[in-house]
Amino acid sequence: MKKNYEEYVASMRKIADVNYAAGLLSWDKEVNMPPKGAAIRSQQVATLSGIAHEMFTDKKFVENLETLEKNKKKLKLPQRRNIELSFKSQQRSNKLSTEFVIRNSKIVSEGYHAWLKAREAKDYNLFKESFRKLVEIRKEECELVGYENHPYEALMDQFEPGAKVADLDILFADVKKQLIKFTKKIATYKQVDDSFLKKKYPQQKQWDFGLEILKRIGYDFEGGRQDISPHPFTTNFGSSDVRVTTRVDERNFGSMTWSCIHEGGHALYEQGLPISEYGLPTGNAVSLGIHESQSRLWENNVGRNLPFWEANIDLVKKYFATNLKGVGASKFFKAINKVSPSLIRVESDELYYHFHILIRYEIEKGLLEGTYTVDNLNEIWNAKYKEYLGVDVKNDAEGILQDIHWAYGSIGYFPTYSLGSFYAAQFYAQAKKDIRGLEKQIAAGDSSKLLAWLRENVHKHGGTYTSEQLCKRITGEGLNFKYFMSYARKKYKMVYDM
Amino acid sequence: MKKNYEEYVASMRKIADVNYAAGLLSWDKEVNMPPKGAAIRSQQVATLSGIAHEMFTDKKFVENLETLEKNKKKLKLPQRRNIELSFKSQQRSNKLSTEFVIRNSKIVSEGYHAWLKAREAKDYNLFKESFRKLVEIRKEECELVGYENHPYEALMDQFEPGAKVADLDILFADVKKQLIKFTKKIATYKQVDDSFLKKKYPQQKQWDFGLEILKRIGYDFEGGRQDISPHPFTTNFGSSDVRVTTRVDERNFGSMTWSCIHEGGHALYEQGLPISEYGLPTGNAVSLGIHESQSRLWENNVGRNLPFWEANIDLVKKYFATNLKGVGASKFFKAINKVSPSLIRVESDELYYHFHILIRYEIEKGLLEGTYTVDNLNEIWNAKYKEYLGVDVKNDAEGILQDIHWAYGSIGYFPTYSLGSFYAAQFYAQAKKDIRGLEKQIAAGDSSKLLAWLRENVHKHGGTYTSEQLCKRITGEGLNFKYFMSYARKKYKMVYDM
Repeated sequence: MKKNYEEYVASMRKIADVNYAAGLLSWDKEVNMPPKGAAIRSQQVATLSGIAHEMFTDKKFVENLETLEKNKKKLKLPQRRNIELSFKSQQRSNKLSTEFVIRNSKIVSEGYHAWLKAREAKDYNLFKESFRKLVEIRKEECELVGYENHPYEALMDQFEPGAKVADLDILFADVKKQLIKFTKKIATYKQVDDSFLKKKYPQQKQWDFGLEILKRIGYDFEGGRQDISPHPFTTNFGSSDVRVTTRVDERNFGSMTWSCIHEGGHALYEQGLPISEYGLPTGNAVSLGIHESQSRLWENNVGRNLPFWEANIDLVKKYFATNLKGVGASKFFKAINKVSPSLIRVESDELYYHFHILIRYEIEKGLLEGTYTVDNLNEIWNAKYKEYLGVDVKNDAEGILQDIHWAYGSIGYFPTYSLGSFYAAQFYAQAKKDIRGLEKQIAAGDSSKLLAWLRENVHKHGGTYTSEQLCKRITGEGLNFKYFMSYARKKYKMVYDM
Repeated sequence: MKKNYEEYVASMRKIADVNYAAGLLSWDKEVNMPPKGAAIRSQQVATLSGIAHEMFTDKKFVENLETLEKNKKKLKLPQRRNIELSFKSQQRSNKLSTEFVIRNSKIVSEGYHAWLKAREAKDYNLFKESFRKLVEIRKEECELVGYENHPYEALMDQFEPGAKVADLDILFADVKKQLIKFTKKIATYKQVDDSFLKKKYPQQKQWDFGLEILKRIGYDFEGGRQDISPHPFTTNFGSSDVRVTTRVDERNFGSMTWSCIHEGGHALYEQGLPISEYGLPTGNAVSLGIHESQSRLWENNVGRNLPFWEANIDLVKKYFATNLKGVGASKFFKAINKVSPSLIRVESDELYYHFHILIRYEIEKGLLEGTYTVDNLNEIWNAKYKEYLGVDVKNDAEGILQDIHWAYGSIGYFPTYSLGSFYAAQFYAQAKKDIRGLEKQIAAGDSSKLLAWLRENVHKHGGTYTSEQLCKRITGEGLNFKYFMSYARKKYKMVYDM
């Protein structure tokens, strides 16, 4: 099997080369490309994606993979896992005919354009019929791909392999039961003052400060860089070149700072993946949920916590002395953790955030089960926002049309955002147990032991384990919402002097 | 043939997509890539190049191309020309076995590393044995590829299709006869004062000024951008995205300014190529010589001429008021055209430049003919520099090791630099005839009619005609050195008050 495996590795690496090249074309499109380059660029990306697909479905490659799958017991763990995961991807794509793939990409393309127009006009009705087709083809996909318990699992599996609706139902029941109660309790306390975060924070100073913060959390600029793009993202072309982007809003200090730390957390994960497994599943992240756990851990558990600002209050005041006159670490910490319901997911605080996800999860599941239809989905959306967040949606642009995911026909993705926060809380609780004096170190400006712990426990394994296996290896149990609640209770007790 | 031609076009465009993606990987490497990304990046570029090669030598593609070649009389001009040129490339690559290609790339890779070391140590002997292998495999290539009159033509054909040694011999005999005499004459006149060009020109101001100048010559920033890289270059990913790079030397005003205009000239050509012929030979430049004619025309015939600085002296003085106090257009014009022999090709003035090329041409031809060997080539080099330029080469780094071309085993490329200048002079002379009051327009800050003339006469044809055909279409005759001499005599008469 040695030769077969080597052949498999060589092909996978070539496929990765092509996909990473397509990734660079896309990164460049967001960051550098002059406007006239757009049309040809899309064509170039499509050509590369097509070539990567052809390589992955090449007859010789597939036969070799099947041979390896049949003989996988002869392989050791990382090798065996690679074969299993590649074979699984292969099986999934085999179940989708070329006709289906072409039809899907046509529906997605139409859907995206309809969504753009509908959002512009703030009118869900302009998106409705396209969305109907998108939902129908997703349902079709569920049946083609197959599932054990619930069609939703067939879709989620692409983002969070092995995720079960039964588990998510328990998690989101906890969110509903415990978090709604908790946010209602918070609302009875005096609101914190975050007015100084809305002063003018000059572009260039924010940029310089962001780079400084990225360095402080351990992001390696020898193997990455930061640029400006309309929507912050992290991308990589192998773990030796992992790039982040951010945006600057001069009237909103948090917009850039937490995007830097959030994307920085994603990037630290990518920079820690084993380069020896380049192009192979075990060289990639486990899942979107685990990826998000890394960004959220740095953004929230570290970056929105008091110790981090005890360490960095002088730095931030060096950059923004006037705006932050008289603001100490504690006042700063409270301001950046203000809790209040908002209509827009990406502007939400750490707690209300999960109601945004809960609503999308309920709607997506309902669409697949047939309990909801697209017909009046904006009304259902608005009612849920009233019920869970107590806010009135004034128009569809700030309601059902706010996120791009459904416009691309992407269903089953949203839950990974909440999973990320919950995994983050559980991992961080374990890190505090494993690293003596962790928060004292962070308060002294040293998060290197935390990074080393993440490298050792999460990053270096790449995709060797499932999310569940990884969580059990690290914390001794599966994902448990109690860690998030306990983290939240402790934090907001301080923030609101509860 | 319609369907065959359509199939051919579709394949060629996909190949172009892959090659342009590889081009972006390379551009990014020079401009953006963090240092740790280098190893994987080289592998990614190699994979894409390999894929493009496989596509171009794919059996179905080749058979279709052969069918089209056999039936090319049924095709009209741009189509027929595409088939001819693609078939020619195909034939050339068919003559080189895979074994040859692999052996060549190994020798080139070793040669490049040996050259790096040798240049570092300023010792040609460290490069000699690698260079011997490079020359031997080029000779082998000449025999494999075949040629009509002289082996050198087999190599030149890749850069300047159809170029003949007999023609170049005449050109360079003219260079020797007329230009040496002319530079000797200039040397008897009082040297011009260019000391103010060596003052400190701050980085940021140079950068801003460079962008301004690029705009003024008509470079379209909606379809391009400028960045910093160690060695200036122009690259494109289709004619809708054509990028230039430059470098800034604070103690040398000219370094950035003329690199901007030079690369800008290349870029104007690429931006003017027909996007409808994307991926096809007729959508590409004719040859490196014609490409260089476009950069040199803007750099020298326009950018180092008096009218251009009559238009722009106020602009440059706005940026660098102190440095240029008391300097008018005429004084500025004289300073930027100072003639004096130098050891380094890329730092040379417009006249001595061609002795640098002459020397390389004589040596390359001599190596192929066997009249020179690599054994004592540095001594031959030094003797020629003494003879033609009257300068002493102190070490091999500023002598035979200065250029990268031979390190890559690239022989037959250098003459295109001189051809570029000579074509430029001839085209510019014609433009002056065709556009009434051209230099008055330029002196008034308007070079748009010149650009329109180049678009119409050169750019829009892409690779439809050969260099010779194009030159005859535009000027009524083949390339003629007299236009360069006449341009030079007129210019330096003013510069040196002859």
